[in-house]
Amino acid sequence: MQIDFEKMGGLAPAIVQDAGNGEVLMVGFMNQEALDKTLQTGFVTFYSRTRNKLWTKGETSGNRLRLTEAATDCDFDTVLCKVRVEGDGLVCHEGTRSCFTKPMSFTPAPGPSEPTAGSAGTPNPSKPTAGLPGTPEAGNV
Amino acid sequence: MQIDFEKMGGLAPAIVQDAGNGEVLMVGFMNQEALDKTLQTGFVTFYSRTRNKLWTKGETSGNRLRLTEAATDCDFDTVLCKVRVEGDGLVCHEGTRSCFTKPMSFTPAPGPSEPTAGSAGTPNPSKPTAGLPGTPEAGNV
Repeated sequence: MQIDFEKMGGLAPAIVQDAGNGEVLMVGFMNQEALDKTLQTGFVTFYSRTRNKLWTKGETSGNRLRLTEAATDCDFDTVLCKVRVEGDGLVCHEGTRSCFTKPMSFTPAPGPSEPTAGSAGTPNPSKPTAGLPGTPEAGNV
Repeated sequence: MQIDFEKMGGLAPAIVQDAGNGEVLMVGFMNQEALDKTLQTGFVTFYSRTRNKLWTKGETSGNRLRLTEAATDCDFDTVLCKVRVEGDGLVCHEGTRSCFTKPMSFTPAPGPSEPTAGSAGTPNPSKPTAGLPGTPEAGNV
Protein backbone atom coordinates (compact mmCIF):
# COMPACT_ATOMS: atom_id res chain seq x y z
CA MET A 1 0.00 0.00 0.00
CA GLN A 2 1.59 3.26 -1.12
CA ILE A 3 1.17 6.26 1.18
CA ASP A 4 1.28 9.77 -0.30
CA PHE A 5 4.09 11.25 1.75
CA GLU A 6 4.73 14.03 -0.76
CA LYS A 7 1.64 15.97 0.28
CA MET A 8 3.38 16.93 3.52
CA GLY A 9 7.06 17.09 2.65
CA GLY A 10 7.81 13.42 3.21
CA LEU A 11 5.60 12.92 6.26
CA ALA A 12 2.12 11.65 7.01
CA PRO A 13 0.17 12.00 10.26
CA ALA A 14 -0.24 8.75 12.15
CA ILE A 15 -3.08 8.47 14.64
CA VAL A 16 -2.68 6.02 17.51
CA GLN A 17 -5.94 4.62 18.83
CA ASP A 18 -6.41 2.20 21.72
CA ALA A 19 -7.70 -1.04 20.22
CA GLY A 20 -9.54 -1.83 23.42
CA ASN A 21 -11.63 1.24 24.11
CA GLY A 22 -11.19 3.39 20.99
CA GLU A 23 -9.49 6.24 22.83
CA VAL A 24 -7.26 8.40 20.62
CA LEU A 25 -3.94 8.26 22.43
CA MET A 26 -1.62 10.42 20.35
CA VAL A 27 -0.71 11.64 16.90
CA GLY A 28 2.77 11.43 15.49
CA PHE A 29 4.30 11.61 12.04
CA MET A 30 5.77 8.89 9.87
CA ASN A 31 8.05 8.97 6.87
CA GLN A 32 8.35 5.97 4.58
CA GLU A 33 11.07 4.44 6.72
CA ALA A 34 9.07 4.83 9.94
CA LEU A 35 6.02 3.27 8.30
CA ASP A 36 8.07 0.39 6.95
CA LYS A 37 9.56 -0.25 10.37
CA THR A 38 6.12 -0.07 11.99
CA LEU A 39 4.64 -2.60 9.58
CA GLN A 40 7.68 -4.89 9.72
CA THR A 41 8.09 -4.96 13.50
CA GLY A 42 4.49 -4.60 14.66
CA PHE A 43 5.46 -1.77 17.01
CA VAL A 44 4.65 1.85 16.13
CA THR A 45 7.68 3.89 15.03
CA PHE A 46 7.45 7.58 14.22
CA TYR A 47 9.74 10.08 12.60
CA SER A 48 10.66 12.73 15.14
CA ARG A 49 10.50 16.15 13.53
CA THR A 50 12.54 17.78 16.28
CA ARG A 51 15.23 15.10 16.53
CA ASN A 52 15.19 14.22 12.82
CA LYS A 53 15.31 10.52 13.36
CA LEU A 54 13.15 7.47 13.79
CA TRP A 55 11.58 7.07 17.17
CA THR A 56 10.02 3.83 18.34
CA LYS A 57 7.51 4.92 20.93
CA GLY A 58 8.16 3.20 24.26
CA GLU A 59 11.83 2.37 23.70
CA THR A 60 12.70 3.89 27.07
CA SER A 61 9.38 3.95 28.91
CA GLY A 62 8.33 0.42 28.00
CA ASN A 63 5.02 1.73 26.76
CA ARG A 64 5.48 0.29 23.32
CA LEU A 65 2.53 0.46 20.97
CA ARG A 66 1.74 -3.03 19.74
CA LEU A 67 -0.06 -2.81 16.43
CA THR A 68 -3.31 -4.73 16.16
CA GLU A 69 -4.71 -3.05 13.04
CA ALA A 70 -3.42 -0.54 10.52
CA ALA A 71 -5.32 1.36 7.87
CA THR A 72 -5.02 4.34 5.61
CA ASP A 73 -7.71 6.65 4.32
CA CYS A 74 -9.35 7.50 1.03
CA ASP A 75 -6.53 9.90 0.14
CA PHE A 76 -3.74 7.57 1.22
CA ASP A 77 -2.14 10.37 3.21
CA THR A 78 -2.88 9.44 6.85
CA VAL A 79 -2.22 6.28 8.84
CA LEU A 80 -4.48 4.93 11.58
CA CYS A 81 -2.80 2.55 14.03
CA LYS A 82 -4.91 0.58 16.45
CA VAL A 83 -2.71 -0.60 19.28
CA ARG A 84 -2.43 -2.30 22.61
CA VAL A 85 -0.16 -0.29 24.87
CA GLU A 86 2.51 -2.22 26.74
CA GLY A 87 4.05 -1.30 30.08
CA ASP A 88 2.10 0.95 32.38
CA GLY A 89 -0.07 2.18 29.53
CA LEU A 90 0.74 5.83 30.06
CA VAL A 91 1.39 6.92 26.50
CA CYS A 92 1.81 10.62 27.13
CA HIS A 93 5.09 11.97 28.49
CA GLU A 94 2.96 14.00 30.91
CA GLY A 95 1.95 10.76 32.62
CA THR A 96 -1.52 10.23 31.19
CA ARG A 97 -2.94 7.49 29.03
CA SER A 98 -3.75 9.85 26.18
CA CYS A 99 -1.97 13.01 25.04
CA PHE A 100 -5.36 14.68 24.45
CA THR A 101 -5.95 15.99 27.94
CA LYS A 102 -6.52 19.70 27.22
CA PRO A 103 -10.20 20.45 26.67
CA MET A 104 -11.07 23.32 24.37
CA SER A 105 -14.19 25.35 24.99
CA PHE A 106 -16.60 25.93 22.13
CA THR A 107 -20.09 27.14 21.35
CA PRO A 108 -22.38 24.17 20.72
CA ALA A 109 -24.25 24.39 17.44
CA PRO A 110 -27.89 25.36 17.80
CA GLY A 111 -30.59 22.76 17.27
CA PRO A 112 -30.92 19.22 18.51
CA SER A 113 -27.77 17.18 18.89
CA GLU A 114 -29.29 14.20 17.20
CA PRO A 115 -27.50 10.88 17.64
CA THR A 116 -28.17 10.18 13.99
CA ALA A 117 -26.51 7.90 11.55
CA GLY A 118 -23.14 8.97 12.87
CA SER A 119 -23.45 6.54 15.69
CA ALA A 120 -26.18 4.21 14.59
CA GLY A 121 -24.92 3.54 11.09
CA THR A 122 -28.41 3.84 9.64
CA PRO A 123 -29.59 6.57 7.27
CA ASN A 124 -31.87 9.30 8.55
CA PRO A 125 -33.99 10.25 5.54
CA SER A 126 -35.95 12.88 7.47
CA LYS A 127 -32.86 15.04 7.88
CA PRO A 128 -32.60 17.58 5.06
CA THR A 129 -29.21 18.32 3.58
CA ALA A 130 -27.85 21.77 4.19
CA GLY A 131 -27.10 22.39 0.53
CA LEU A 132 -24.66 25.09 -0.49
CA PRO A 133 -24.73 24.54 -4.24
CA GLY A 134 -21.48 24.64 -6.10
CA THR A 135 -19.24 23.82 -3.17
CA PRO A 136 -17.81 20.41 -3.91
CA GLU A 137 -17.12 17.99 -1.09
CA ALA A 138 -13.81 16.23 -1.00
CA GLY A 139 -11.63 14.00 1.10
CA ASN A 140 -9.25 15.25 3.72
CA VAL A 141 -7.68 17.73 1.38
CA MET B 1 -6.27 27.86 24.19
CA GLN B 2 -3.43 28.65 21.79
CA ILE B 3 -2.60 26.00 19.17
CA ASP B 4 0.93 25.83 17.77
CA PHE B 5 0.19 26.23 14.10
CA GLU B 6 3.75 27.27 13.26
CA LYS B 7 5.09 23.74 13.59
CA MET B 8 3.40 22.83 10.35
CA GLY B 9 3.38 26.01 8.32
CA GLY B 10 0.16 27.42 9.71
CA LEU B 11 -1.78 24.18 9.92
CA ALA B 12 -2.56 21.57 12.54
CA PRO B 13 -4.02 18.10 11.98
CA ALA B 14 -7.59 17.73 13.21
CA ILE B 15 -8.87 14.25 13.98
CA VAL B 16 -12.59 13.65 13.76
CA GLN B 17 -13.88 10.92 16.03
CA ASP B 18 -17.46 9.65 16.33
CA ALA B 19 -18.64 10.62 19.81
CA GLY B 20 -20.95 7.63 19.89
CA ASN B 21 -18.73 4.67 19.10
CA GLY B 22 -15.21 6.14 19.08
CA GLU B 23 -14.60 5.41 15.41
CA VAL B 24 -11.98 7.66 13.79
CA LEU B 25 -13.86 9.10 10.85
CA MET B 26 -11.37 11.36 9.10
CA VAL B 27 -8.41 13.66 9.49
CA GLY B 28 -8.30 17.14 8.07
CA PHE B 29 -6.23 20.24 8.67
CA MET B 30 -7.12 23.49 10.38
CA ASN B 31 -5.54 26.89 10.34
CA GLN B 32 -6.35 29.44 13.04
CA GLU B 33 -9.37 30.70 11.12
CA ALA B 34 -10.78 27.20 10.62
CA LEU B 35 -10.32 26.40 14.28
CA ASP B 36 -11.97 29.66 15.33
CA LYS B 37 -14.92 28.96 13.06
CA THR B 38 -15.20 25.40 14.38
CA LEU B 39 -15.25 26.54 17.99
CA GLN B 40 -17.59 29.46 17.31
CA THR B 41 -20.15 27.57 15.23
CA GLY B 42 -19.97 24.10 16.78
CA PHE B 43 -19.56 22.52 13.34
CA VAL B 44 -16.17 21.27 12.16
CA THR B 45 -14.50 23.48 9.57
CA PHE B 46 -11.19 22.60 7.94
CA TYR B 47 -8.72 24.44 5.80
CA SER B 48 -8.54 22.77 2.42
CA ARG B 49 -4.93 22.48 1.31
CA THR B 50 -5.88 21.85 -2.31
CA ARG B 51 -8.52 24.55 -2.59
CA ASN B 52 -6.78 27.00 -0.25
CA LYS B 53 -9.92 27.97 1.58
CA LEU B 54 -12.05 27.11 4.54
CA TRP B 55 -14.24 24.10 4.13
CA THR B 56 -17.09 23.30 6.47
CA LYS B 57 -17.48 19.56 6.16
CA GLY B 58 -21.02 18.64 5.15
CA GLU B 59 -21.95 21.96 3.52
CA THR B 60 -23.15 20.13 0.44
CA SER B 61 -23.69 16.55 1.61
CA GLY B 62 -25.54 17.47 4.79
CA ASN B 63 -23.16 15.32 6.79
CA ARG B 64 -22.10 18.15 9.03
CA LEU B 65 -19.91 17.28 11.97
CA ARG B 66 -21.57 18.57 15.11
CA LEU B 67 -18.94 19.09 17.78
CA THR B 68 -19.60 17.48 21.14
CA GLU B 69 -16.08 17.72 22.59
CA ALA B 70 -12.83 19.34 21.52
CA ALA B 71 -9.36 18.88 22.94
CA THR B 72 -5.74 19.45 22.10
CA ASP B 73 -2.70 17.45 23.11
CA CYS B 74 0.35 17.91 25.30
CA ASP B 75 2.19 19.73 22.50
CA PHE B 76 -0.76 21.92 21.53
CA ASP B 77 -0.26 21.03 17.89
CA THR B 78 -3.15 18.65 17.13
CA VAL B 79 -6.91 19.00 17.56
CA LEU B 80 -9.26 16.16 18.47
CA CYS B 81 -12.91 16.74 17.59
CA LYS B 82 -15.54 14.39 18.90
CA VAL B 83 -18.64 14.74 16.79
CA ARG B 84 -22.09 13.55 15.98
CA VAL B 85 -22.48 13.24 12.23
CA GLU B 86 -25.60 14.75 10.74
CA GLY B 87 -27.35 13.63 7.56
CA ASP B 88 -26.81 10.09 6.36
CA GLY B 89 -23.66 9.77 8.43
CA LEU B 90 -21.45 8.87 5.50
CA VAL B 91 -18.47 11.10 6.19
CA CYS B 92 -16.19 9.86 3.43
CA HIS B 93 -16.67 11.05 -0.15
CA GLU B 94 -16.33 7.39 -1.15
CA GLY B 95 -19.66 6.69 0.56
CA THR B 96 -18.50 5.12 3.80
CA ARG B 97 -18.88 6.24 7.40
CA SER B 98 -15.13 6.54 7.93
CA CYS B 99 -12.38 7.50 5.52
CA PHE B 100 -10.13 4.80 7.00
CA THR B 101 -11.30 1.89 4.89
CA LYS B 102 -7.99 0.68 3.45
CA PRO B 103 -6.40 -1.97 5.64
CA MET B 104 -2.62 -2.19 5.64
CA SER B 105 -0.93 -5.53 6.16
CA PHE B 106 1.78 -5.85 8.76
CA THR B 107 3.83 -8.37 10.70
CA PRO B 108 2.45 -8.72 14.24
CA ALA B 109 5.08 -8.26 16.92
CA PRO B 110 6.26 -11.50 18.51
CA GLY B 111 5.19 -12.33 22.04
CA PRO B 112 1.83 -12.20 23.70
CA SER B 113 -0.53 -9.41 22.69
CA GLU B 114 -1.35 -8.57 26.25
CA PRO B 115 -4.44 -6.48 26.86
CA THR B 116 -2.47 -4.58 29.48
CA ALA B 117 -2.88 -1.17 30.92
CA GLY B 118 -3.59 0.21 27.45
CA SER B 119 -7.16 -0.89 27.75
CA ALA B 120 -7.62 -1.64 31.42
CA GLY B 121 -6.04 1.50 32.77
CA THR B 122 -4.22 -0.44 35.49
CA PRO B 123 -0.45 -0.76 35.76
CA ASN B 124 1.27 -4.05 34.96
CA PRO B 125 4.33 -4.12 37.21
CA SER B 126 5.48 -7.49 35.89
CA LYS B 127 6.20 -6.06 32.47
CA PRO B 128 9.84 -4.93 32.20
CA THR B 129 10.66 -1.77 30.33
CA ALA B 130 12.55 -2.18 27.11
CA GLY B 131 15.20 0.32 28.14
CA LEU B 132 17.37 1.94 25.52
CA PRO B 133 19.37 4.28 27.76
CA GLY B 134 19.93 7.78 26.56
CA THR B 135 17.00 7.87 24.17
CA PRO B 136 14.63 10.44 25.63
CA GLU B 137 10.92 10.01 25.21
CA ALA B 138 8.91 12.93 24.05
CA GLY B 139 5.49 13.97 22.89
CA ASN B 140 4.38 13.86 19.29
CA VAL B 141 7.48 15.61 18.03
